[in-house]
Amino acid sequence: MSRDPVWGEDDLVRRIARIFPIPGPPIEVPIGDDAAVLRVGTGGRLVLTTDQMVQGVHFRRGDRPGRLLGDKALSVNLSDLAAMGATPRWALLSLFLPPRLRMPDLLEILGGMARRAKRCRVSLIGGNLTASKTLALDLTLIGSFPPGVRPLLRRGAKVGDFILVSGSLGASAMGLRLLDSGWRWRSGSAFKRGASKKATRAANHVLRRHLMPEPELALGSILARRRLASAAMDLSDGLSRDLPRLCRASGVGARVELAALPLDPAVVTLAGKEDALRLALHGGEDYRLLVAVRPSRLAAVEKLLPRGRLRPIGRILPGKAGIRLLDSGGKSHRLPVFGYDHLHPVRPV
Amino acid sequence: MSRDPVWGEDDLVRRIARIFPIPGPPIEVPIGDDAAVLRVGTGGRLVLTTDQMVQGVHFRRGDRPGRLLGDKALSVNLSDLAAMGATPRWALLSLFLPPRLRMPDLLEILGGMARRAKRCRVSLIGGNLTASKTLALDLTLIGSFPPGVRPLLRRGAKVGDFILVSGSLGASAMGLRLLDSGWRWRSGSAFKRGASKKATRAANHVLRRHLMPEPELALGSILARRRLASAAMDLSDGLSRDLPRLCRASGVGARVELAALPLDPAVVTLAGKEDALRLALHGGEDYRLLVAVRPSRLAAVEKLLPRGRLRPIGRILPGKAGIRLLDSGGKSHRLPVFGYDHLHPVRPV
Repeated sequence: MSRDPVWGEDDLVRRIARIFPIPGPPIEVPIGDDAAVLRVGTGGRLVLTTDQMVQGVHFRRGDRPGRLLGDKALSVNLSDLAAMGATPRWALLSLFLPPRLRMPDLLEILGGMARRAKRCRVSLIGGNLTASKTLALDLTLIGSFPPGVRPLLRRGAKVGDFILVSGSLGASAMGLRLLDSGWRWRSGSAFKRGASKKATRAANHVLRRHLMPEPELALGSILARRRLASAAMDLSDGLSRDLPRLCRASGVGARVELAALPLDPAVVTLAGKEDALRLALHGGEDYRLLVAVRPSRLAAVEKLLPRGRLRPIGRILPGKAGIRLLDSGGKSHRLPVFGYDHLHPVRPV
Repeated sequence: MSRDPVWGEDDLVRRIARIFPIPGPPIEVPIGDDAAVLRVGTGGRLVLTTDQMVQGVHFRRGDRPGRLLGDKALSVNLSDLAAMGATPRWALLSLFLPPRLRMPDLLEILGGMARRAKRCRVSLIGGNLTASKTLALDLTLIGSFPPGVRPLLRRGAKVGDFILVSGSLGASAMGLRLLDSGWRWRSGSAFKRGASKKATRAANHVLRRHLMPEPELALGSILARRRLASAAMDLSDGLSRDLPRLCRASGVGARVELAALPLDPAVVTLAGKEDALRLALHGGEDYRLLVAVRPSRLAAVEKLLPRGRLRPIGRILPGKAGIRLLDSGGKSHRLPVFGYDHLHPVRPV
């Protein structure tokens, strides 16, 4: 793919969607959202999503304890369900097993996945396994909605809506940077020879955000049940790449205020404010929810959720405005896209 | 894994099933059958399965036109649904894309998959893509049953049942052998420089069986709707490996008659009778259905299906008998297992 830079991930997804037959009912949401939605029985809905973790792409050999690998492989899928407000139910696991992988190591990976599965009440109902050159975990997750509850979709944001995120941004990308620079996670703590106490405390936080992301299941569920959001998605590839996806699906534009971006204090400690801003805009794998809320619902959001649970970062604009970034001087720029493209996996930040 | 020969694929699957929380209702069939079964609404059921195709394991680079790769990736999943008698409905596609893969080649693969999807009325409803060292296609397929129709399972075979297969065995493994020895599929026909007309005719057939397997969807559906079978599965890893799986799930043994094995005439032409027998017993990827039928239902099977559609190859025995092979001299042996183990992918035949 890298020979053909015209093709990005989003182009390819659109192309694939056109090649295949268009699904009719009971499919409500086909390709292009965080997960597919299927109506079953009377009023009930199932939601299906799939996500991979590949050695050499999403993790490196030996860069973390195996149990954290299994945990994250499940969590990134859970995050897609959280983005829709679904309750996770079942999983199918495809294992790609290299010949050099030892059985105890595989069992540790699976053990980590099983602990997360138990915590989030997910049952493994099937799967498959194959030999492979590199280790990969590919999960398909199925979630459900109570009758009458409608999934949160990327489409639905309207001009004037507030744009909110469910926590600080950029820590996961900072954690990845630390792994690249020799930090490791050992016996429940960040470790690097010769590191200061202050750096270790900050590293603890960002490594945790990178290695053990917490899918926002409770938040997604309440947003869906109370119909608080007009649109939502999870932030997996960076705000600068994901916000345009939500806007494209909704046929709108957006303006993000640089001064409102919830920087992560630990990232500021480790890399300085300028870098922290870059990571907040373009860093991937935060797995926060990105939510659009009508002005008329904002009071309900503030009442129902703990203060600061969702933080406003901007507003929805008409589509022709594109995606704008308002700098601290009050000047508006076009938001550059540097987020993670799965076909051109060059770390931008 | 290969360092730890104690662990086979089946062992690992059982181990995985024990690590994860046990699924309760509405899951009717968890890990261990061809697909998982989920009750939805009133009387309806969904069935979910997943299967991978990995470069260097299931195919080699350049060994076939891309469209045949896409076609087979879907067909092997459809075969799991056929084995249960389900109607295929929807698919999720996980793509693992190496940097050297050119976009036209990928579109050819997807085009082949889309043609099969259209023919079998499958809609793609989601998926994911990632960079990867090697090309792999991982599909999750969802099928459905009409209200009241129960899936065909591996469990359910009873002592005295007839064992039948839905066609000749061994051709796909022979096709793989031909690919290994330089045969190729070009413009709709088998090709090898200097090959005789007779060999080319036989090669045409076995390569087609290997490259374009036909999932037995119509047969599976009628077996389920008419409740003709007491147990069923598809033959993906070879009779000698798959029959014991059906027997284990049913808590029974079996006796296969060597003289009754439906050899493939083209395989006999290409490799001689002895080899054809070996391939019929141990060769993988035939994607025929293996079916157990009560003696009292045999007449109904013969009435409802065209003559020879299902061919008897043996009988179900009590569990303590194990899996026996009756040779042409009337002597009974223990059936040796040489079929395909995905953790020890050494071609046995």
